[in-house]
Formats: sequence, C-alpha cells, structure tokens
Amino acid sequence: MTLVAAPARLSTAAATFEADFAARLHWSADTDAAIEQRVADILADVQKRGDAAVLEYTARFDGLSAPSMAALELTQADFKAAFDAIPQAQRDALQAAAKRVRSYHEAQKKASGESWSYRDEDGTLLGQKVTPLDRVGIYVPGGKAAYPSSLLMNAIPAHVAGVQEIIMVVPTPVRGSVATGGSGEGTSTKGERNELVLAAAYVAGVTRAFTIGGAQAVAALAYGTATVPKVDKITGPGNAYVASAKKRVFGTVGIDMIAGPSEILVLADGSTPPDWVAMDLFSQAEHDELAQSILLCPDAAYLNAVQREIDRLLPSMPRAEIIAKSLTGRGALILTKDMEEACAISNRIAPEHLEVSSTDPHRWEPLLRHAGAIFLGGYTSESLGDYCAGPNHVLPTSGTARFSSPLGVYDFQKRSSLIEVSEAGAQVLGTIAAELAYGEGLQAHAQAAEMRLTTPVKPR
Amino acid sequence: MTLVAAPARLSTAAATFEADFAARLHWSADTDAAIEQRVADILADVQKRGDAAVLEYTARFDGLSAPSMAALELTQADFKAAFDAIPQAQRDALQAAAKRVRSYHEAQKKASGESWSYRDEDGTLLGQKVTPLDRVGIYVPGGKAAYPSSLLMNAIPAHVAGVQEIIMVVPTPVRGSVATGGSGEGTSTKGERNELVLAAAYVAGVTRAFTIGGAQAVAALAYGTATVPKVDKITGPGNAYVASAKKRVFGTVGIDMIAGPSEILVLADGSTPPDWVAMDLFSQAEHDELAQSILLCPDAAYLNAVQREIDRLLPSMPRAEIIAKSLTGRGALILTKDMEEACAISNRIAPEHLEVSSTDPHRWEPLLRHAGAIFLGGYTSESLGDYCAGPNHVLPTSGTARFSSPLGVYDFQKRSSLIEVSEAGAQVLGTIAAELAYGEGLQAHAQAAEMRLTTPVKPR
Repeated sequence: MTLVAAPARLSTAAATFEADFAARLHWSADTDAAIEQRVADILADVQKRGDAAVLEYTARFDGLSAPSMAALELTQADFKAAFDAIPQAQRDALQAAAKRVRSYHEAQKKASGESWSYRDEDGTLLGQKVTPLDRVGIYVPGGKAAYPSSLLMNAIPAHVAGVQEIIMVVPTPVRGSVATGGSGEGTSTKGERNELVLAAAYVAGVTRAFTIGGAQAVAALAYGTATVPKVDKITGPGNAYVASAKKRVFGTVGIDMIAGPSEILVLADGSTPPDWVAMDLFSQAEHDELAQSILLCPDAAYLNAVQREIDRLLPSMPRAEIIAKSLTGRGALILTKDMEEACAISNRIAPEHLEVSSTDPHRWEPLLRHAGAIFLGGYTSESLGDYCAGPNHVLPTSGTARFSSPLGVYDFQKRSSLIEVSEAGAQVLGTIAAELAYGEGLQAHAQAAEMRLTTPVKPR
Repeated sequence: MTLVAAPARLSTAAATFEADFAARLHWSADTDAAIEQRVADILADVQKRGDAAVLEYTARFDGLSAPSMAALELTQADFKAAFDAIPQAQRDALQAAAKRVRSYHEAQKKASGESWSYRDEDGTLLGQKVTPLDRVGIYVPGGKAAYPSSLLMNAIPAHVAGVQEIIMVVPTPVRGSVATGGSGEGTSTKGERNELVLAAAYVAGVTRAFTIGGAQAVAALAYGTATVPKVDKITGPGNAYVASAKKRVFGTVGIDMIAGPSEILVLADGSTPPDWVAMDLFSQAEHDELAQSILLCPDAAYLNAVQREIDRLLPSMPRAEIIAKSLTGRGALILTKDMEEACAISNRIAPEHLEVSSTDPHRWEPLLRHAGAIFLGGYTSESLGDYCAGPNHVLPTSGTARFSSPLGVYDFQKRSSLIEVSEAGAQVLGTIAAELAYGEGLQAHAQAAEMRLTTPVKPR
C-alpha cells in the first residue's frame, strides 16, 4: 500500500475557509470520567497506604513486582553506568546539549529571576525576594515517549533555579503489561531501562529516581511515602492517567501545564528550500497521529513545491505511517493573501512551535503575539530548538500559548513580597489603609494601621 | 455571654509539640464530590447554551431575573456614578492606594517582566519575548467578601502588564436567595450593587462588567457566550463552586491559585508593642473562622502580654465573635527556643503573611525561605500591605508559598522563546541535534537538522 500524506489545501480567499479552518483546528482534551474516577481512587489509596499501595499498582499496571519501594530506586551508580555504556558520540551530544540549555537558562534567570527592591521617598522598602523550590519531581514517561532530551529540559532549569533535590520517576513496564491505568506504552521488556534516559539523568544531575509511573507515581510525589519524598512541584509529560493525576494534585503541589499533541506552524515567504520545510512539517507529524503541522504561505506555487517534497520524502521516513496519518488527518497547507494575514492566522492558532521561514523574519516577528517558541529564519529548524539551541522544548500546546509560557527557571522559583514600612511611611499609609478597611467593614485591619500612627486616632 | 479568644499555647520544648502543632495546622481543601458534579454540569450547559444558560442559573441561584445578558451588563457610567457617589475620603484613599499599587507593579515589570535576548559566539540569537495576555476575566465575589481592594489588586497588575481588556464578573444575589450553587453570601438586596466595588472598577479601569457569579460566570468567561467575551485567564477569589469551576476550566484558560483561608504568622522578638501584635492577629482572624493567626516568640512573658492585649481588645471589636472562634479554633501562641527556631518553624508553615516584628528584621529575613509576603519591622502591619503599601495582597495560602508566588504582572504576561540560528550555528547545532534525535528514534527531527548542514550528510 502506498502511503499518502495529504494535508488539507485551504485558501483564506475561499468562502468555506472559516469552517474548514475551524474543523482542522478542532481538538478536544475532554477527560474521560472513568479515568478521572480511577485516578481519584489511586490517589486516595496512595495517600492512605503509601509505599504498599504504590507497589501494588506497579505490579498490577506495569507488571513489575518488587519486594519493597527501595528495590525500585535507581542509584547514582546506575546513572553513571548508563552514561559510560552509551556511545561516545551520544555522550558528547548529551553534554553539549546540556551545556547550551544550562547557559540559556542562566541568562533567563539573570534577566527575569533575580530578587529586587527599592525604597520610596518615605524610606519604605518594597520588593520581591526570589527563591528556589526546595524539592521537585520530574515525571519521565516509559516506552516510546521516553525522551532523554525532555529530562534535560525539565531538570536543568530546576538546577539553575537552585533546587536542591530533583526526584525522577520513570516507569519500566513489562512488555504487554499495559493494563488500564498503566503508565507506559508497553514496548519495553521487563525491567528494561532506557539507557539514554539514565545517562541524561547523570548529565542533568538527578538526585534520586524510582521506576514507578502512572497516577501512583504522581501520588507518591505529591503526598510523599515512607520511601518517596514529598515534592513541592511535579513537571513532565505523561499519558491521560498522569495528566488527570497532576490536575487533581494541583494545589497540594505545583504542576506544569498539561500538554496536548505537538504542533508546528510554519510561516513561509517562499525563500526556504521546500524540502527543508517539508521535513520540518514531518518532524512534528512523526511524534503522533494527532500532532498538527500547518504551513501558511502567500505563494501557491511554493505550497505545491512543498507538497511535492512531502510526496518525495515520505517513503524514506521510518515513521512514514504516523507522518501520513498526522498530515492527512490534521495537517494543512494554507494559501494566504499576504504575510500579514499569515501572521494574523498564526495569532489565532497560538502554536506551540512557530517557524518564520523568511529572509526577513524580524519584519514579521513583532506581529506575532502568541506562540510557545518562535524560530526565526530558514536555518532555524524546530528540531535544533528541541535538542540543543538552548531554550526549553517544553512549550504550551493547544492554544495555551495565549496565556502560558515555555517551562523555565521561573517555574522552579517562587517569589515573596518584601515590605518594610518606615515610621514616616506608616503615617501616610495608615490613614489610607484605615479608610479602605473601614469601607470594607474590617475594623481590626483599620485599627492595626491606626495604632502605628504617631498622632493617636480618636475611636470611631 | 463573654467571648473568649484563646489561641493554643504551645512550646517547642514540650514532648507533645509535634502532634499539637500538626493538629493546629491541619486544614483540608477536600472538594465535595456533589459540588464537583454540579459544577461540571453547569459548565457543560453554559458551553452548550451560552447566554440562555447563564441567565437561567443567575435567576435560579442568585434570584436575579433578567430578560437578556445585556441587561446584566454594567456600564462605564455605572462605575463613574459609583465613584462620584462615595465620600471624598474614600475616593482619595482608593486613588492613593491604586497609585502605589501601580507604581510597585511597574517596578516589578521592569525587574522581571521585560523581553531579553543575546547572541552567542556563532551569531545565533536566543531570548524571550514577553507579551501581555489579550483579555482577562476578574471574578469579584458578592456579599460579605466583596472587597474593592481585591479588585484593585487583580486589575492593576493586568493593566501594567498591558492587558487590553479586563472583564469583571460580580454577582448581585438577592437577599435570601442563596440556593445550592449560589454565588454570593445572600446579604445584599435585589439588584443592590456594592458601590465601593464599582468605584474601584472605575479607578482600576475595568473594560466591561457583568452582574453574574458562581460556576456559570466562570464558564461564561472561559468559553465565551454571545454576550460575554471569552478570556485568556480568570483570576480572583470565590466560593467552593467558583474554585471548583476554575480548577475545571484550567487548560482552556489560565487561572490563578485557588485560595484557602487567610493566614498570618508573626515572628516576634518582643520589641513591638503587644497591642500592635494582638491587633495584627485579629486582622487575619476577623476574615473568617477558619483563618489562622500564629505568633512565634522566644519570650514567654511577651506571649502573656499579647494574650492580655487580646483579652483587653477583643470586646471592642465589631467582629469579635469571628475573631474569638478563629483564634480559639486555629490560632496559636508558640514559645520557641530562639528566633532561629522560630524562623525554621515558619518555613515549615510557609505562611501567606509573615510579619517579622523585630528591631532587626534584616537579620532574620535571609532565614525565611517560604512566605507569600514578608512584613519587616514593627511598623509594617499586614493591613498596610493589604491596601496600599504597593505589593499585591493576593498571596499563596495553605502552604502553597512553597511553590507559588504573589499575584503579579507576570501572571498577566506570557513568554515566547526566540531562536534565530545563524548559518554557522546550524553547523554546530545540527550534528548535536541529529545525534540525539536518532537516539530517540525521531528521524525526521534528525534529517531536518542535517539538511541545514552545508556539508551534505550521507544517509544513515
């Protein structure tokens, strides 16, 4: 059977454009009520029974039996052995990537993550103190979605922020064991560990790690058990059970955004070799049948050229089947009136990855309001950003770039306001605060302010 | 009946301290499953039927019938009329507070909310572009918890961030109408509006406002209706229905933290007049019977003096009953070995408000790792921070200061990574990225990187 990758061909000039566009974009993260209930039960059980419950679920869902949680802990020696065992080229690549990611996040911390304060004219000090979280948990999926690069992208910003303890959980499900509630993809054999992930843990400096997954691992991190330490925040991607569990423990701990399918949007002025753009569209499509690759261009001939490259390159791709399904099911090549219109459509989508494949990307960048990451110019393939350019590859999906940001150092820091009111300041602020507090019917608030006034206040 | 405010007297030297301390701190935000289900139904209904559903719920829960959503919209003229109608002293106080809050948040934006970028040695540009959200929704509770100061604290950072549209929802429930799912406290009369809230909307610059509340208002903001515009983020406090609804729409829109009962922790070295500290403890306790006021001090005589002031001042407080219940039920005066131990205990609690009531507050501040806001020195009553010092009064509660921050300009901004890889940079990054991509089995990623190499790559 010949595979066909046929992204929808749309034109903004067509009468049906709005309807066709809406149909392509539609994706729903509706949660399955049955999953929600099972996850609620697992969380409650782990909160109550701790290690014993985690061990039971790990045996039941991952097919992995262990006499104790301690037996499921990985050691620093495990990480080191994995690092030593992988080929030199991989070791070098991991370290080079880690170095660049660290350097970028250090710049990020300096630009937006330092404490600050000032004194006003009354000598009152105001500011914010920025401090790292004490301990964070990183969820690393098992099976086909086990990406060592994701571990670097989660652990390094935490390190740069100054987090002292990074606890990793990574399921090692037994092949064929994926029961309902299973944490992995079931493609690994029993006890098999992803050596690249462990090597990345070595490079990133993970503190402790447990081979557990699913809702039970999220619960262990959120509530703590006798063996697994309670963390302050949980980050990292996972399946529907993991996502539901993270959403449910939000408030007990912090969480990162819940990720949907990966997306790329390419704005092209027609100057980039069409095979480069075709391969960039593939590089999202190969993740997942639900991934979305969209190309916007004002030049119909260029869209045709990219489609020809898609047809030419597809047969050579190992993941051709996934790519074909993704592009045919969710992809689109959209003809726009001009680049300005392409930018406006991009803002409506608020894509995770946005390539500005143009000879003049800085002309268009100011028009782009919503995107996880913006890749400027033809040389900036999204995949360079995925691995080693430096910025984080954990990005908001499904239009959430309208209100959320790439994972960063700021996700592993928190802020405390600092206020030191001088005696002079208290005289000014006290009367304002008291007036408003009385207006709200909060008399103790008002009197606490008035007590600091040097000139005593007559009782109201 | 004589009211008694008897906070627990604990000592860290006592054998039972850990157990007593844990019992005092215990507070659970367990969600009621029945509320969760009702909220899910309301959200689904508003998503499907829009304005019609919102109107029905508003009639049913708030007792407020209207022929159309348009009839529930407040106008800029309403805001202006309210501002003109309140006493001059309140107008002045609102404007003075707004000015200071704005000034602080402008400093915050400058310190941590500006775009940044740099070029590496290969000429590759890396950075982050910081942009405001387009449109946000602010929930303002009806009834007794309707605080104009909260509206300022939510709207002003949004304005400073550059948000163009601020949509306020504020229920105006009819007295006695509080049915299950009601949005307010049922203490206002039909159609009655809180004039101070509307005046604050005038001062803060709210764009549009609707007199709706509860889960139905959250749904209207999250999904949009024919009349209520869909927003990107919803902030502001509310009852259990509002909190459950916000948690459920998280992902469709951004939300702020879900707030628990208010808390104050005072670290005292014994130098502040004990009546000041007693009133500061009252100022949290008067919010809510579940509010928590804790005093830590190494000086037993000072704790006695504060208790005497509590006894002396309590009868004069209009909210004496709430204060007495809060202090007796959840308050504590804790004798510590020294100030260092007091700081360590404070870190375990991670309080919302932390007063360092000391002549040498800067000696202790570096020891304090987790708190929403730190008030330094005896003149800095928490109530000054609540209204007009400048920093935000929306702060993490229930220990969430371990991982979250005061509401700020950053909550109304989002970041997009910027990457522009130079041709030279693509040569360096391409080989690293390809190595890691092949390791992860993502061949399209690898080839997209390799295509940018000037020296062609032999096919693997």
